[in-house]
Amino acid sequence: MQQKTEFRIDIEGIINIIRRRGVRSVGLQLPAGLMRQGRLISKEIQNQCNIPVIIAGKGCYGSCDIDTELLGMVDLLFHFGHSGSDRENLIFVEVRSTLDVSPAIESAIEYLEGDKIAVVTTIQHIDQLDRAKTILERAKKEIMIRMGSGDGINYPGQVLGCNASAVDPRCDEVLFIGTGLFHPGGIALICKKKVVAADPYTERVEVIDPESLIRRRWAILAGAIDADVFGVILSAKSGQYNKELADKILKAAADHKIEAHLILLDEVTEDALINLGMDVYINTACPRLVDDMEQVTLLNPDEFKKLLDLRER
Amino acid sequence: MQQKTEFRIDIEGIINIIRRRGVRSVGLQLPAGLMRQGRLISKEIQNQCNIPVIIAGKGCYGSCDIDTELLGMVDLLFHFGHSGSDRENLIFVEVRSTLDVSPAIESAIEYLEGDKIAVVTTIQHIDQLDRAKTILERAKKEIMIRMGSGDGINYPGQVLGCNASAVDPRCDEVLFIGTGLFHPGGIALICKKKVVAADPYTERVEVIDPESLIRRRWAILAGAIDADVFGVILSAKSGQYNKELADKILKAAADHKIEAHLILLDEVTEDALINLGMDVYINTACPRLVDDMEQVTLLNPDEFKKLLDLRER
Repeated sequence: MQQKTEFRIDIEGIINIIRRRGVRSVGLQLPAGLMRQGRLISKEIQNQCNIPVIIAGKGCYGSCDIDTELLGMVDLLFHFGHSGSDRENLIFVEVRSTLDVSPAIESAIEYLEGDKIAVVTTIQHIDQLDRAKTILERAKKEIMIRMGSGDGINYPGQVLGCNASAVDPRCDEVLFIGTGLFHPGGIALICKKKVVAADPYTERVEVIDPESLIRRRWAILAGAIDADVFGVILSAKSGQYNKELADKILKAAADHKIEAHLILLDEVTEDALINLGMDVYINTACPRLVDDMEQVTLLNPDEFKKLLDLRER
Repeated sequence: MQQKTEFRIDIEGIINIIRRRGVRSVGLQLPAGLMRQGRLISKEIQNQCNIPVIIAGKGCYGSCDIDTELLGMVDLLFHFGHSGSDRENLIFVEVRSTLDVSPAIESAIEYLEGDKIAVVTTIQHIDQLDRAKTILERAKKEIMIRMGSGDGINYPGQVLGCNASAVDPRCDEVLFIGTGLFHPGGIALICKKKVVAADPYTERVEVIDPESLIRRRWAILAGAIDADVFGVILSAKSGQYNKELADKILKAAADHKIEAHLILLDEVTEDALINLGMDVYINTACPRLVDDMEQVTLLNPDEFKKLLDLRER
């Protein structure tokens, strides 16, 4: 079964924790890419421990997104696929991809123009950074693998969608190993560096130019200059709730005589924002959500500040 | 502004409640069709009472779907568009449509074949049932408008998506006044009667045949007969959570040696179920969700019981 071989999940370790702690019910929370492992893990726990298991059915986007409802229902919640700090009844279970990243990195070499390359990846490929280093050094590159800082950052070279602190600012460019444009796009915007993204699954390479992303954000900002009604989004997600920041934005809006409304949302989707019918939204939840929007204007707090400056002129 | 004239919302009444109670923060929860009224109501409250307002941004499907997170954040939550029993910090605000239902009912007459017609509608048109009665009696129909029973049922002739108890079983057929197929489909399935649905917005009439709906459900049931892995859905919504029922289903599955997993979900969407990767789902949340699924098999508890019977044979 292909799914079993793509990921390494230490189910025996989980069973041992359950037995040692003697818990009477557990919850499982998995991100979309791992969701289908849920029933295999649930079955093992039911078979070996004979205790009830509840699987969180809704999507989950990081250690900032704990299913607090499920947490309150079970003795112990296992949160898979992200790194974080365990709490009394919450355990983070890291998951490693068993896919060899080497072919993707070989393909990436021809796109790397600079000498000093910061190499970063997400938690599931983190144990293959040494392999990446060997390949790139053979190609005469100077490799920088730095420990970042912040919640959920546990390894040198590890990045999150909202955290690119593992990228050494002295690098020429960044090699990201992983899937999708969510992470490399964030890195390019945060670090203002060229990012070469190598996908171990497809073995495809994508080059992300920070300039075009920055220009796109400026164009969106310019389009919001005459907006009338603003929605300030407060996240209901465990690690994204930031009432203080939302209140600061509401105050700045009031000071500028801008009509603004506070909105509580769990999943910040384009459909939900369209349905709310406001002109512009300011996002205090995950800073990377702004890139998911095509039909509505969603700005991050620093962009809203720029907008106020532009309106002042 | 069209939106202002389509609904009658007693904003002054809301302001009076806020003043009388002296609350220091309020939340607003609105169903999708009323969501855009949120900012108008929020603005009035901010202007007249000068207290913070938080709008619930996620969809809401009935009095069974209170945003408990928002409820915990504010002194008083106003829930719009559904009827229900007020609690200490929760007030249900009914909303009436100002649209005249007469043209839709005139159009419906030619589709009514029987003599005894049960007339039902949703809360927003409830005050126009007398008008409907007059028109139908003029067309020589005997009209039955009965008080139903259950949570959220406050008026004679009122139905919910999950509650058609206002339909008198002695009627020949049912006239439903309202929008969409969600309610009339439910009525047809629950009462096993022909339902004529008259939409006051489009003035269109739709005839729902219970036989075809029942046949569809049987076909789905037959397709699930050899399924291996079952997911039992437990709702995280305030009024849809039914752990006892879910546990009963899990026990029945275990008794029949069927692999089953308990899943906690807030929004039960087709995407979420597809992603979970099980063969069949049993739904203990809103009983009407089963009709929203095209690519996955979702059964209500009574259908699961039938399935077990079929497998026994």
